[in-house]
Amino acid sequence: MVKKIAIIGMGTVGEATIRSLKKNAALISRRKDLDVEIKGVCDVRKEKETVAKSLGVAFTTDAYQLINDPEVDVIVELIGGIEPAKSLILAALKNKKHVVTANKALLAQHGAEIFNVALENNVAVGFEASVCGAIPLIEGVSRGLVSSEIKKIEGILNGTTNYILHRMTEERMDFALALKEAQKKGFAEKNPHFDVEGIDTLHKLCILAYLCFGVWPKLDKVYTEGITKITLMDILYAEELGYRIKLLAIAKKEDHDLDLRVHPALVCFDHPLAEVDDAYNAAFLDTVPAGQLLFYGLGAGGAPTSASVISDVVNILLGGNEFFRGEEKVKLKNIKEVTTRYYLRFMAKDRPGVLAAIAKVLASCKISIASVQQREVSKGKLAPVVILTHRAKEADLQKALARIDKLDIVKHPTQVIRIEDL
Amino acid sequence: MVKKIAIIGMGTVGEATIRSLKKNAALISRRKDLDVEIKGVCDVRKEKETVAKSLGVAFTTDAYQLINDPEVDVIVELIGGIEPAKSLILAALKNKKHVVTANKALLAQHGAEIFNVALENNVAVGFEASVCGAIPLIEGVSRGLVSSEIKKIEGILNGTTNYILHRMTEERMDFALALKEAQKKGFAEKNPHFDVEGIDTLHKLCILAYLCFGVWPKLDKVYTEGITKITLMDILYAEELGYRIKLLAIAKKEDHDLDLRVHPALVCFDHPLAEVDDAYNAAFLDTVPAGQLLFYGLGAGGAPTSASVISDVVNILLGGNEFFRGEEKVKLKNIKEVTTRYYLRFMAKDRPGVLAAIAKVLASCKISIASVQQREVSKGKLAPVVILTHRAKEADLQKALARIDKLDIVKHPTQVIRIEDL
Repeated sequence: MVKKIAIIGMGTVGEATIRSLKKNAALISRRKDLDVEIKGVCDVRKEKETVAKSLGVAFTTDAYQLINDPEVDVIVELIGGIEPAKSLILAALKNKKHVVTANKALLAQHGAEIFNVALENNVAVGFEASVCGAIPLIEGVSRGLVSSEIKKIEGILNGTTNYILHRMTEERMDFALALKEAQKKGFAEKNPHFDVEGIDTLHKLCILAYLCFGVWPKLDKVYTEGITKITLMDILYAEELGYRIKLLAIAKKEDHDLDLRVHPALVCFDHPLAEVDDAYNAAFLDTVPAGQLLFYGLGAGGAPTSASVISDVVNILLGGNEFFRGEEKVKLKNIKEVTTRYYLRFMAKDRPGVLAAIAKVLASCKISIASVQQREVSKGKLAPVVILTHRAKEADLQKALARIDKLDIVKHPTQVIRIEDL
Repeated sequence: MVKKIAIIGMGTVGEATIRSLKKNAALISRRKDLDVEIKGVCDVRKEKETVAKSLGVAFTTDAYQLINDPEVDVIVELIGGIEPAKSLILAALKNKKHVVTANKALLAQHGAEIFNVALENNVAVGFEASVCGAIPLIEGVSRGLVSSEIKKIEGILNGTTNYILHRMTEERMDFALALKEAQKKGFAEKNPHFDVEGIDTLHKLCILAYLCFGVWPKLDKVYTEGITKITLMDILYAEELGYRIKLLAIAKKEDHDLDLRVHPALVCFDHPLAEVDDAYNAAFLDTVPAGQLLFYGLGAGGAPTSASVISDVVNILLGGNEFFRGEEKVKLKNIKEVTTRYYLRFMAKDRPGVLAAIAKVLASCKISIASVQQREVSKGKLAPVVILTHRAKEADLQKALARIDKLDIVKHPTQVIRIEDL
């Protein structure tokens, strides 16, 4: 069987997809009795024509030439961003062409519309590459766990931030230095906002929420906190206490409550996510009856991501690419209602009664202390007081912190990092 | 869409599959617009009828009643063993019914015939549950990695042996005690031969070899060694040297050479498999271009395995359950040609020149020493000498050991455990 595809967007992933497809054509054909041919590639940057030609692929700057080509079965969108990606995808779907995309920002914001149009036109949208790069997580959840209830997902879904936190931990660097290094090595963009503020992770979490629970959460309803406020001091305290700090995407479902959030968290050494280093991604799932599962692999990079793009192409062309449809009755939990454990770091002034004062406020807000670390410091310096709490309600914690930050014995604001237990 | 299935074999997995399917019917139907009904279950044990009735499912002791039922779309075989499972599966396939099975022993030995008959009759065989229980590894490899070359698989594919090795490590128990405990807890069977001798792992490795490389290796051509000779002393030495001992299934492909083996191995703490504890399973893959991947989850148990059984049923009924077909040109490597690192433990007599003698033989066989551990022992006792080698050829190692074991300064046989580096 010979099928034709077209690729729109010749960035890192686009070019890698062409190369992988050319290189592994024989492999795919032997395994699946399918020949995938590239009818053409498109990029608005005219200078990409040279690369396309060197790869033996027809080039155009007009995407609609490919979208309107009756010979093309699948449109692969690898431009990224909202427009023109969205219009091109919708046009392709309306032309009864399957679409494969790695565009998490677009799906997170317009996934409902895109999947509806796909359904109306009886074509598929493949999005394996949009979450966790090369890891077949979308397949694993939508097919492997089709009969399992998903209770919890904890994911390291962004390679840039994981690389930064890993370097801070390994090399005892502060955030700014680790970010600079990541930028130099190409792991972080010049403007790292999307990654370090957790927005990329949020987009991926929204896609997982759809996949697992059939709902598209509104982005601004999901609590999102990045890693810019994580200091080396926190990483060192966490390590001493038996934890690593990771930027997590969290989805927890209890009855009809859906708790979605993105924030840095202390994960204990025993947690499978604690050992996910460098720019690797991983998703840890707690399910019934399939139990606990971990998927781990490369979350970014042209070549690894191309593996997911091509697997979508092949699986869609062979049929059977289905994804979850039915919406579950869930109510998004507000962060204030969330109950979790906390790491609190106060910078206390060198005066008697500081710990007593902090402990009193915490107690009055029903927050129970699990452990305290306070060390001697030179006279006149601020002394870090690190408290791990038992489970407490976020609203209570915020109330306590508002009061503590008003005390003149601590330098505000207090550092707060949530703890994600196994 | 309503589809009917029949389940043959009401053991742990069979009963769990009925329960999971009943419990999650609404979930599946919402997610996939598919209603899966159980037309009937079969077991030769008449007493299972009571359970079937309590679960509201029609019962028969005659499998052919279900296999010949025109209403049944999928036959789920959960008997295990070669016969009658094989005859029943072939009969079902010839009746144009899809088959879902968890039977690794059968597939490892008769997979070629079964898949051919399925192909001839244009029906599918689902076997997700046959390797790594609840982990969607078969899907992940056959679909997610469809365009990736698989260079290496290292797997912990047997929960029983992993549980035993983990308990030996954690509780400083010897093998016999850990086995007894595993049997008491239901993790090991009364006759543990299949598990502890590595045969179950071998069966699963053969299925993976088919999945990844399109070949069905002959069982007796794959080097297989169990864990019965692993002592607590080896586990402690390994730990001191920075390694865990795990029973691994290994598949490595280099050009057209396929290196398949099952044996205990030292894996360094940094290796993702080192932390796979209890009865968990995991598979670590090195692929191009998808990179390194880890799949981790529960490898056994009725409920977890039922998740994979049902996912096969659903995915087959929705179409698109394809697996690798084309045979790759590979030549099975004989263990003698394998090059790897070794952990060697000699029990040396308390005499001068022992280390010199051992080292001399190793050197004469081109085996280079990476590290040596020898400690003082009480007079008259045998002193363990632990040597880690650099990479050496198995044939050379065996030649050296044959010579060393003839020396009267060591108690033979020498303990040999291969090292599997990241």
